[in-house]
Amino acid sequence: MRVGLDVGGTKTDAVAVDESGTITGRVRLATGWGPDGVTATVVEAIGALARERPGDDPIRSVGVGMPGQVVPGSAHVTHAVNLGVAELDLPGRLQPRLGVAVAVENDVKAAAVGAHALRRRQGETLAYLNLGTGVAAGIVRDGRLWRGPRGTAGEVGHISVDPDGPPCQCGQRGCIEALAGGASIARRWERPSSLPVRDMMDAADAGDHTARRLRGDLMAGVAAAVRILVLTVDVDVVVLGGGITALGDRLRNGVVAELDASAEASAFMRSLHLRERVELLPAGSAAAAFGAALIGAARDREHPQESMIHG
Amino acid sequence: MRVGLDVGGTKTDAVAVDESGTITGRVRLATGWGPDGVTATVVEAIGALARERPGDDPIRSVGVGMPGQVVPGSAHVTHAVNLGVAELDLPGRLQPRLGVAVAVENDVKAAAVGAHALRRRQGETLAYLNLGTGVAAGIVRDGRLWRGPRGTAGEVGHISVDPDGPPCQCGQRGCIEALAGGASIARRWERPSSLPVRDMMDAADAGDHTARRLRGDLMAGVAAAVRILVLTVDVDVVVLGGGITALGDRLRNGVVAELDASAEASAFMRSLHLRERVELLPAGSAAAAFGAALIGAARDREHPQESMIHG
Repeated sequence: MRVGLDVGGTKTDAVAVDESGTITGRVRLATGWGPDGVTATVVEAIGALARERPGDDPIRSVGVGMPGQVVPGSAHVTHAVNLGVAELDLPGRLQPRLGVAVAVENDVKAAAVGAHALRRRQGETLAYLNLGTGVAAGIVRDGRLWRGPRGTAGEVGHISVDPDGPPCQCGQRGCIEALAGGASIARRWERPSSLPVRDMMDAADAGDHTARRLRGDLMAGVAAAVRILVLTVDVDVVVLGGGITALGDRLRNGVVAELDASAEASAFMRSLHLRERVELLPAGSAAAAFGAALIGAARDREHPQESMIHG
Repeated sequence: MRVGLDVGGTKTDAVAVDESGTITGRVRLATGWGPDGVTATVVEAIGALARERPGDDPIRSVGVGMPGQVVPGSAHVTHAVNLGVAELDLPGRLQPRLGVAVAVENDVKAAAVGAHALRRRQGETLAYLNLGTGVAAGIVRDGRLWRGPRGTAGEVGHISVDPDGPPCQCGQRGCIEALAGGASIARRWERPSSLPVRDMMDAADAGDHTARRLRGDLMAGVAAAVRILVLTVDVDVVVLGGGITALGDRLRNGVVAELDASAEASAFMRSLHLRERVELLPAGSAAAAFGAALIGAARDREHPQESMIHG
């Protein structure tokens, strides 16, 4: 079997996948803190999947999706701030212990691969737009993840779409992440809450002025990201995922209304049929863990020796 | 020999290219008006190149780059407004007459192919950003033109980067083309001129208030397009071409100053080294005609029968 993990800031989602690409098992655990905590969580999740598996199917590869930067050609993750990880070489820690290849990929990119595979439309060019603490996209084209030469393909979060927009943590103004990222919305909403985006949406529905402005920015930011992905990469579909998509139709309807407004203003935008090209990842989807499993399996098949040595 | 043509609103640039990819001849003619005028210009240019050629090297393929939309999989050009062409089937008109395959491509996409080939860096991912009457980009990746499933890859001109920006002909506000397209600048500059962008720049240097705002918008629009192309497609280089690049260093320095300002504000933007990734196409470059020749040659090599029938 192939194992895939999505190591998130609070929980880790792990799946077992058979050679036909079917998910045969799934466990969810709280994520430990720091390099040792993350490593222990991954080991524990793999152990739980191994105990659950039918028969004695050996684990043949492990793929891990996690936040942070994965330097192309390396398996080192850096800057995974939400996990308390400045730098981590998971393959180096796990391969000697598990005796199998361990591949690591950025979690958004892993989710893009998983979302594409779950849709089962092979020729489709897809962007997975993650609306979480931050905003970033992963792109799949010709059935493969497209990282770009420097790994910045899909980094739409720090494109400014409003020179007078709210300041972004990155130092610019009006970035898509400043408009539509969960951390930025929480910061701008100011009221303490465990679910600031939901609270903001409720307050907007109730007529609160600040909340309505923040809601407008959220929808405008997501719509801008969709337009940019379509007009640069010409993706067939933009799949929205991440924590903010727990809003469900409230998010979808708001984004579609923004896209409709630009389609109404512009025959060119209308010709793009954007409203039909936006979808939400189903709630509880295992896309990121599934994608990580596929990435681990692919790397193992392509470079069975190398993946053991370098991950 | 292979022939490539860049059919522009005022002039047509035509080159002869040998099988090694070297330009062996070049002619420039005024472009005729409407479908018949364009067809006659193409025939005349090919005749002039044939007369110039050394020895008796037969013409083996023709590639034509021209403004307008080329429907993927077809050779029909539509909406080439500047040429007086609503619809034109050049291969249908030319192939029976010339007896060789004729391929047609959008001129910006042809220029992207040509700019990439002229740089002779095979693995490079390149965007060619055309700053002419309008603004659009062509993208080359893995040595091939990337059109996208609907042919809108690189259509950055109608991405809005300022909700309070100037109205765009497309119906939106603050589109990159509204900020940095020649037609929009001429419209906003209002004073009659045969070189409105140059006049505006001169007036800005002399302190004119309106001109300084338009100049700022031009530089901001080009810089936004560069950031978007790098942060979605992760191109190695953005090559600027088109009529507005006749400004040379005045354009380059203004765009670099904009990119430097965002790099100064943001460590993330700084890490992208954008100023080093922007280049101007050399004045008088035959990139578009050369790219058209390569596209014609490639289509002829890949589908020798089909290209005769369908172009």
